[in-house]
Amino acid sequence: MTATTPADLWPEVRPEAARRLLLAAVESFADRGYHATTTRDIATAAGMSPAALYVHYPSKAALLSEISRTGHRSTLALVEEAAAGDGGPADRMRTLVAEFTAWHARAHTVARIVQYELQALPPDEYAAVAELRHRIEEAVRGLIGEGVAAGVFDIPDVRTAARAVLSLGIDVARWYHERTAEPPEELGRRYADLVLRMLGARADA
Amino acid sequence: MTATTPADLWPEVRPEAARRLLLAAVESFADRGYHATTTRDIATAAGMSPAALYVHYPSKAALLSEISRTGHRSTLALVEEAAAGDGGPADRMRTLVAEFTAWHARAHTVARIVQYELQALPPDEYAAVAELRHRIEEAVRGLIGEGVAAGVFDIPDVRTAARAVLSLGIDVARWYHERTAEPPEELGRRYADLVLRMLGARADA
Repeated sequence: MTATTPADLWPEVRPEAARRLLLAAVESFADRGYHATTTRDIATAAGMSPAALYVHYPSKAALLSEISRTGHRSTLALVEEAAAGDGGPADRMRTLVAEFTAWHARAHTVARIVQYELQALPPDEYAAVAELRHRIEEAVRGLIGEGVAAGVFDIPDVRTAARAVLSLGIDVARWYHERTAEPPEELGRRYADLVLRMLGARADA
Repeated sequence: MTATTPADLWPEVRPEAARRLLLAAVESFADRGYHATTTRDIATAAGMSPAALYVHYPSKAALLSEISRTGHRSTLALVEEAAAGDGGPADRMRTLVAEFTAWHARAHTVARIVQYELQALPPDEYAAVAELRHRIEEAVRGLIGEGVAAGVFDIPDVRTAARAVLSLGIDVARWYHERTAEPPEELGRRYADLVLRMLGARADA
């Protein structure tokens, strides 16, 4: 089983100290929540002084913003790629759900912060992230709509269905633990099957 | 639209001051998370002194425990009643999903605390709540299994399906806002339709 460590989410973050701070912030936020975490907690977890933290990030909110933006950009990329991939709407939806679900299982610690600490984002960052979330929803709605138009899916309410598809994947971050659940890829495949049934996908689709 | 105020969850809590403290704790935990909330915050929100709070609850953890137990008992009652109700497995599943979903929409503020602050519970309380959660899962698995045995549902993996059914309902608490979503009962009906499709319910079921 491959595990997306938070580090995998920030391959481009340099210097290494900045990446270590992101990792430390993820651990600290996950342990006690964003509001109860201090920049000192994060610096200590990264083996640095608070002053060294400020060299890289001006505030705790800046760390949360980076974690949130990166997480949302990753899932948007994954969803848009799947939606624009090869094959019919059912094949593409299968890929989309499998990868979106597996991402939330693999990166469940990061995903919890990304999904549950939205209200703590500064207003500008919140607006940027809301735009990313809107595009994720649009991609899923678009693909369902395409499937309905092609007669491949049979669903009366595209908006509710799209929300349910994303909701199933996102909620994986809440309950997933490596020790008690199937590997992320296997869970992704099972959820893709469930979603295709939910969308009324034709058996021959 | 009827709204389950947290107060509705504690009709039996007396005296009124204790109920006011539960309400204040829900608001405070929802605003800034459990860890960043102090007993003083809760007492202030309830218009009391910290000393007056301790008359009713020995600690912040005791308030969280009461909120969590009550929430879990409510959803367990609802799920067990629906599963044991009249009609075939598909009818009962429809009721179960509709009510479980509507509950998480109506009581979304309480539900977020109930679902996302499990790790903050003291060990004994956690064990009690884990037992309630286990019974909720058992009830859903049992009903799906009954439907499969009766040839009404067609699902290869009962455990994953049961998790998905509960997950869809629980995640409503994360995204639901009265102003942007359909009323709880309407959402419940739509989700029940989606779940019956997911379970491969026969059209004549």
